[in-house]
Amino acid sequence: MQTSRLPGEFALIARYFAPLARGFPGAYGLLDDAAVIAPAAGCELVAKTDAIIGGVHFLPDDPADLIARKALRVNLSDLAAKGAQPRAYMLDLALPNTIEEDWVAAFARGLAIDQAEYSVHLIGGDTNSTPGPVTIGIMAFGDIAAGRIIRRGGAHPGEGIFVTGTIGDAALGLRVLRGEIPCIDAAAAQFLVGRYRLPQPRVTLGPRLVGLATAALDISDGLVADLRHICEVSNLVAIIETQRVPLSPAARVAIATENNGLALALTGGDDYEILFTAPPSVADELAEVSQAFGIPITAIGHMEAPSAGTKTGVRVMDAAGRPFALEREGWVHF
Amino acid sequence: MQTSRLPGEFALIARYFAPLARGFPGAYGLLDDAAVIAPAAGCELVAKTDAIIGGVHFLPDDPADLIARKALRVNLSDLAAKGAQPRAYMLDLALPNTIEEDWVAAFARGLAIDQAEYSVHLIGGDTNSTPGPVTIGIMAFGDIAAGRIIRRGGAHPGEGIFVTGTIGDAALGLRVLRGEIPCIDAAAAQFLVGRYRLPQPRVTLGPRLVGLATAALDISDGLVADLRHICEVSNLVAIIETQRVPLSPAARVAIATENNGLALALTGGDDYEILFTAPPSVADELAEVSQAFGIPITAIGHMEAPSAGTKTGVRVMDAAGRPFALEREGWVHF
Repeated sequence: MQTSRLPGEFALIARYFAPLARGFPGAYGLLDDAAVIAPAAGCELVAKTDAIIGGVHFLPDDPADLIARKALRVNLSDLAAKGAQPRAYMLDLALPNTIEEDWVAAFARGLAIDQAEYSVHLIGGDTNSTPGPVTIGIMAFGDIAAGRIIRRGGAHPGEGIFVTGTIGDAALGLRVLRGEIPCIDAAAAQFLVGRYRLPQPRVTLGPRLVGLATAALDISDGLVADLRHICEVSNLVAIIETQRVPLSPAARVAIATENNGLALALTGGDDYEILFTAPPSVADELAEVSQAFGIPITAIGHMEAPSAGTKTGVRVMDAAGRPFALEREGWVHF
Repeated sequence: MQTSRLPGEFALIARYFAPLARGFPGAYGLLDDAAVIAPAAGCELVAKTDAIIGGVHFLPDDPADLIARKALRVNLSDLAAKGAQPRAYMLDLALPNTIEEDWVAAFARGLAIDQAEYSVHLIGGDTNSTPGPVTIGIMAFGDIAAGRIIRRGGAHPGEGIFVTGTIGDAALGLRVLRGEIPCIDAAAAQFLVGRYRLPQPRVTLGPRLVGLATAALDISDGLVADLRHICEVSNLVAIIETQRVPLSPAARVAIATENNGLALALTGGDDYEILFTAPPSVADELAEVSQAFGIPITAIGHMEAPSAGTKTGVRVMDAAGRPFALEREGWVHF
């Protein structure tokens, strides 16, 4: 037990977290030791866990409400990319004794905002002290029609490669936050930083890709690195063309002033857009889905079988059709 | 990204963790972004998460295989106390850059041993670097017949209070490890330390309490503190008698040489035994369950309605029927 500026564990749960469990019967108001959850009729549960850690995934001075929302959203993003409808989550919260009650209040407020936004409930968790940084583990659950999860490994030669939204904003935003893109205008800077701090998980669009996408995942490590995951499991080669990769106006500004800015956009990660493959036959349906949700879906390349003696992997081509050099493909955790 | 002595994240997963996912189809060999799990026919899923943190829940020099097994077992213990049959778990592992590959190998070896012991599979997770201590989040899933979870709040006046196994061993074992009970003999010391390092979750017995126990939880914070949880949710008073609390021979030795040793046993926590209430009518069935699994089930007191003007809570009585003084009821996390 450490001394702490916080009220007791149970008071903290009652005050800030139990309200987040209202409306989900199997959460028992966080007054029991475990939660009960069953998938909707005809469905299975998709389960995902992702932890975020102070000094690694967020900056210690980031606002607590945004940290909470990002922790939740990165998990919802994974569910969405698999075609699942998010329903509930659990929270493992480890707090150093420098954390004050205001921080926890703001953290819970952030969760409340996103629970309303995404129709999910907190159903359980664990609160601990830690001699280390704030560490937030989220385990999210979603419903998927039985057998319909969109895997990484279902891509075929000749299929298109698509992304939702725009790519590279978050990685450029982090660089802006670090003062490494000083000449950018304030509006562009604010947009990019916002994309870093608060991902937009594609939770409404994702489930609509069931039956259209053959392989999918969300881009967290970086476009090229995550596309490589699809290639490896699908045993294929991906060819993408840099000039087709969708960039926001702010990202274009940042890239214009930044050495290697395009490479950073392709590999920096934290996009939380859905990367997927789909056959040419569903192009019209993809256009309809894009229109229905007001979210761009952009074709950026295609899948091929590896020619004899070559390996699976990602080939990035520039506007002139030449290989685009990358120093690294994406984020690795250690 | 930190420098580290470990192989890359994906190599680590492939080498040490993917083998733990074999045999559970919805884990997809840990090659996908999420897992799929559905309860058995007629069942719901019970979900529980508990994190353990270096320097808080275990000592930094504890063997990695035992740390892993304890992290898993404390979660299985919760499922068992709720009457659920454990099936699967996810793992959030945050590692400082002082950790070497041997440590991870031992950690995974510990998980493998307990997976075989308890018939559960690793189905997903997340691996990160951290500037803090080793932090292990486990989320465990079990099956329970729909609507049959054993809650905290189902106790009635006149029901007995029972515990499985023996109480206080782990708390005394931790004190032995710290050198605070120097005069104890080696065999007793080893037994108590073993009970601290490696809880025995009652996973076979727990599901047999469905239909017998009216309220249940596992003892992690301490017998008195956890019994208070049942009292608060059931709105009752619990009366327990110290001389009926089951103690191991080693605990009796330690208590005889240790000031306040009995109080420590009642409040020290980390027992991971099941504490439950049940009506007198099921006494014979409880005796049969105890016999069938070779695990003691001991009545330690009874539940009462609070008299007018008194609060819910736990009253601890000594052998002479006098109140037994406790400085604190159990572990609080901060």
